[in-house]
Amino acid sequence: MPQTFPSATYTMTQEKIRLGKMLFNEKRVSIDGTTSCAKCHPFSYYGADNLEKSRGNFGKINPRNAPTVLNAAGQMSQHWRGDRKDVEEQAKKALLGKASFGAPSYEWVEKRLGSIPKYEELFKKAFVNDKNPISVDNYAEAIGAWERTLSTPSRFDEFLEGRSNALTQEEKAGLKTFMDKGCTSCHSGALLGGTMLQKFGVVSPYWEYTKSKKIDAGRYNVTKKEEDKYLFKVPQLRNVAMTAPYFHDGSVKSLRDAIKIMAKVQLGADLSQKETQNIYLFLQALSGKLSEDIVTLPILPQTN
Amino acid sequence: MPQTFPSATYTMTQEKIRLGKMLFNEKRVSIDGTTSCAKCHPFSYYGADNLEKSRGNFGKINPRNAPTVLNAAGQMSQHWRGDRKDVEEQAKKALLGKASFGAPSYEWVEKRLGSIPKYEELFKKAFVNDKNPISVDNYAEAIGAWERTLSTPSRFDEFLEGRSNALTQEEKAGLKTFMDKGCTSCHSGALLGGTMLQKFGVVSPYWEYTKSKKIDAGRYNVTKKEEDKYLFKVPQLRNVAMTAPYFHDGSVKSLRDAIKIMAKVQLGADLSQKETQNIYLFLQALSGKLSEDIVTLPILPQTN
Repeated sequence: MPQTFPSATYTMTQEKIRLGKMLFNEKRVSIDGTTSCAKCHPFSYYGADNLEKSRGNFGKINPRNAPTVLNAAGQMSQHWRGDRKDVEEQAKKALLGKASFGAPSYEWVEKRLGSIPKYEELFKKAFVNDKNPISVDNYAEAIGAWERTLSTPSRFDEFLEGRSNALTQEEKAGLKTFMDKGCTSCHSGALLGGTMLQKFGVVSPYWEYTKSKKIDAGRYNVTKKEEDKYLFKVPQLRNVAMTAPYFHDGSVKSLRDAIKIMAKVQLGADLSQKETQNIYLFLQALSGKLSEDIVTLPILPQTN
Repeated sequence: MPQTFPSATYTMTQEKIRLGKMLFNEKRVSIDGTTSCAKCHPFSYYGADNLEKSRGNFGKINPRNAPTVLNAAGQMSQHWRGDRKDVEEQAKKALLGKASFGAPSYEWVEKRLGSIPKYEELFKKAFVNDKNPISVDNYAEAIGAWERTLSTPSRFDEFLEGRSNALTQEEKAGLKTFMDKGCTSCHSGALLGGTMLQKFGVVSPYWEYTKSKKIDAGRYNVTKKEEDKYLFKVPQLRNVAMTAPYFHDGSVKSLRDAIKIMAKVQLGADLSQKETQNIYLFLQALSGKLSEDIVTLPILPQTN
């Protein structure tokens, strides 16, 4: 498990990270003044919001469940359909999202930021060689830099590093079941997911087992290609026990139910109660420690 | 400036304070799952929300501006009309507030809290001798205990303790103007306010100078007594520079404008630009330091 998830295109300086942490909590760039990244990704709830679907500006309902922002930067792409290439693009595009920040234009956001005296100084320090440091691209880069630090190592990592008793017997049994049943064929990599797209419902249609209110065709709606029907990014499982409810539509509240449904619709397997419970316990071991920096709120500059 | 604001009726134990801090951030007791105390009182914004009027469950607009929760427990009463006797009553009644938490009943809240396994243990530890520890009264007491710790000493306190150079020359001049003009006749006590009710508009109707969209009769709406027309609790001024916009309806964005309006409508005084600026600078010295405990987010228990 990496300590940070560096960007291929820029250097994560302390100035950028500190500014990004503030902007992550900044509501004044939203049309209703209530919406920041932290609204749908509060760290008290492990970077997710405990809702089926998030509520953005003026309480508007977002199309899908908010995945945790913790470790999110380590994934192949962002959003359930993988249609944001990285955390920076996600942060930038969310500003104009009708159900997220709802800003009328990028210029409007830049003007807002520019109206708060202290930000001029902070953007200048973070983007030294930039003629116009206050830009949405820099806003996105700063937030991206912050999000790339949100790594949450857990007992599972200690286990992987060789400390065999970092997991209990039940958790180890759960890991074994998790591997034997084939969960790892999709939930792979350091984050146990976030490395590929996959059809939700390989064996049976997902909506026959979830409590989905409507059918979401997933990536198909982005590409309009038949083979992309019901494809979603395989979610990472880091901190999954802390981030109910589950699936792209948040239709399942209980982690045990989610485990059983996944086995059924992806692998055609009926898990016993004991198998489910062991996997449930193994997944608890993926709940990481949130660093002091993550749980410490930044103070935002005064308006005037 | 007291370090805490103790209750006359109960002991503030660490167990209560720790639980109260969690409950302050707990959204799952609201009807829409988005609303916690912290929604309208985020510490990144100094315990207020930077909005004219707060938005509660399903984005509903609250009747008045959210005052900061910092030092609030040190006031004579809570809410703009002084119709909540203390922070505990405020926390309890907000649960059923139509535009705040919107819970259908206290029993519903208790059931919600009881459905989150970890809370049973935490309420038991905080309310040891209680047969039914999970109750809204205990919810309110725990939150009250937490809020009673939210004291933010500032440079002004250092000055009062005798460190004369804790304030700059301009700030001292501002303090002198603040006293000479008579601001202290209402903005009195350790918090510079929160000790009495007063008519907003002693000399001239407030709405002739503010940008109020409608006239609020203040405490009159609670008591229906003619002498209570336009009476509001005199707001404390601790951290006022960090908690724009201003007045019961958040109708004025700029602190300098708010200072001028107050002098005009309460005291009949036209402040010069220099006088306004000095008071503005003095008020900055009331911005306190938020303790590590205040700015550290609690982690909330998993849902299932």
